Amino acid sequence: MTIVTRSNKPRPVYRPSMDLVPEVLAGNTLSISRMISRAEAGYAEASDALAEIYKHTGKAHIIGITGVPGAGKSTLVSSLIKALTADGHKVGVIAIDPSSPFSGGAILGDRVRMNDAAEATRAFVRSMATRGHLGGLARSTFQAVDVLDAAGYSPIIIETVGVGQDEVEIVTAAHTVVVLSAPGLGDDIQAIKAGILEIADVHAVSKADKPEAAATVSALQGMMALGPVRDNSAWNTPVLSVSSYSGERIQDLKDAIDRHWEHLKESQELAERQHNICRARVLGTAKHLFQQKFDQGIDGFDEQLQAVMHRNADPSVAALALLGWENERQGQ
Amino acid sequence: MTIVTRSNKPRPVYRPSMDLVPEVLAGNTLSISRMISRAEAGYAEASDALAEIYKHTGKAHIIGITGVPGAGKSTLVSSLIKALTADGHKVGVIAIDPSSPFSGGAILGDRVRMNDAAEATRAFVRSMATRGHLGGLARSTFQAVDVLDAAGYSPIIIETVGVGQDEVEIVTAAHTVVVLSAPGLGDDIQAIKAGILEIADVHAVSKADKPEAAATVSALQGMMALGPVRDNSAWNTPVLSVSSYSGERIQDLKDAIDRHWEHLKESQELAERQHNICRARVLGTAKHLFQQKFDQGIDGFDEQLQAVMHRNADPSVAALALLGWENERQGQ
Repeated sequence: MTIVTRSNKPRPVYRPSMDLVPEVLAGNTLSISRMISRAEAGYAEASDALAEIYKHTGKAHIIGITGVPGAGKSTLVSSLIKALTADGHKVGVIAIDPSSPFSGGAILGDRVRMNDAAEATRAFVRSMATRGHLGGLARSTFQAVDVLDAAGYSPIIIETVGVGQDEVEIVTAAHTVVVLSAPGLGDDIQAIKAGILEIADVHAVSKADKPEAAATVSALQGMMALGPVRDNSAWNTPVLSVSSYSGERIQDLKDAIDRHWEHLKESQELAERQHNICRARVLGTAKHLFQQKFDQGIDGFDEQLQAVMHRNADPSVAALALLGWENERQGQ
Repeated sequence: MTIVTRSNKPRPVYRPSMDLVPEVLAGNTLSISRMISRAEAGYAEASDALAEIYKHTGKAHIIGITGVPGAGKSTLVSSLIKALTADGHKVGVIAIDPSSPFSGGAILGDRVRMNDAAEATRAFVRSMATRGHLGGLARSTFQAVDVLDAAGYSPIIIETVGVGQDEVEIVTAAHTVVVLSAPGLGDDIQAIKAGILEIADVHAVSKADKPEAAATVSALQGMMALGPVRDNSAWNTPVLSVSSYSGERIQDLKDAIDRHWEHLKESQELAERQHNICRARVLGTAKHLFQQKFDQGIDGFDEQLQAVMHRNADPSVAALALLGWENERQGQ
């Protein structure tokens, strides 16, 4: 009898990211997981692999799910995963977690509820932190979507945090945006306050079993009617009530999402959205790289900072000097 | 009798921003208002005047007031204005309004309650939109603080929106951060969720007259006790309950804020905070200028975008090319 002690086990070998690419494309979930982890960690070694993966993207329907905290986004996503996988879809989910830039922690409690749906089905669910990015969605969120897209997942759901910049930025990442509102959160204009009323392709109202849900549906319909007049060919944003207890209502939501995807493909809008997504990604990546360069230390930063602290230069002059744009003062 | 019709009135002349500077420094509120408007509008013409004004800054105590929406920030600020002006302070307030990047509108309702305090006293209250900035506080927010600082206002209160990036960024703009929590908002960890527990120099709990307030104070004190151990000389973050109906409690808050300012001045911390504020401003301004350049159109952007859309280049490669950093691929 051979006793295998822990130290006798073969050590895991770091496999080059490029070697994982064929496995990602073949849909190997372990390799998909690893590739997303490397994108999230920002490994330079993974950049060529991610560039290779990017070539195989552009097939998936990307759905953004947003709404204020407490609206029930995670529950809705769980129900959607069930409904979509039952239809034979291979569903990818990127759930963006709130994280503090100070503690670095992420509140993961919400995610636990998703497990039963994810484990049993053809779904790939991944939580990602939003930490360290520069307003808007993190570069690694887009890269994780790429990995799932290249691996054949569609639709891919991005579930946002529910506060701040991400909510409106989701429109530059997704083909179809679902805005979830909850009835009776004490404020009928949650979606307006959050600035997310206008970005909805589909409005969903959670907790349909609550009596207040109907009032919230009416309020949203009323607000939609106040919006800009659309021509006949344009998409008419539906307002649906959903409930995690009713499979039928989830089916209605799924149908609305499907109809929107068909509408995009039949009209010019898909090309427009693809264009906007690419534009936002290039701009976002450039900002990310720029921030990185600053974080690593730009030559002359300390001198400029001292000048600003001693009121010998104002921040605009210092910033232009650091960028090498001194001559652009007038255009500031 | 001469009838003065509207068309006979002299037209207002645009006065160069530089001409307004002596009046700003002398405390002329009309000129202060104009200068802030020009900073907010981003007039290139105002940049030299703002640089001149910047030389006269660095005297004011800058207080950040943050907290989740509904915590009662505006009411607290109104009470603080009254208490501070009664003490002979010339108080400046910059209230950051939520605004949608889509509608461009700002919800101003909250501000109305402040008027009685502002009009009757030596306070200057200004609402500013957060629109169009790149995560974190807007460049013009800092510039408005500069204008008030140079004009002799101190303290200057920055009241944040209560959602998103601004909440944690306030720590890079203010000397003293007050985090306001409300009792019974259904969730004792509001401040944790928003990532703002750690940034408080003073914790305030609103609605002290509510029975739940004591429980929220205890919860916050308990969480503070779980934080990192501080040495004896360090600031001990107080947790105070406040009420808009009680002048005495507002006095306690005002005293705590004053004590924190004294603490900063007596310790090395003031220099550290000034350093951090300058650092954040220079970085923020550089990002702003960078975004502006992108918005105005960078040479080669369309070509790179087409390459990304057709999957001939991935967003990182395109962004590096636009930045002229092609050789830095490995460091990405």
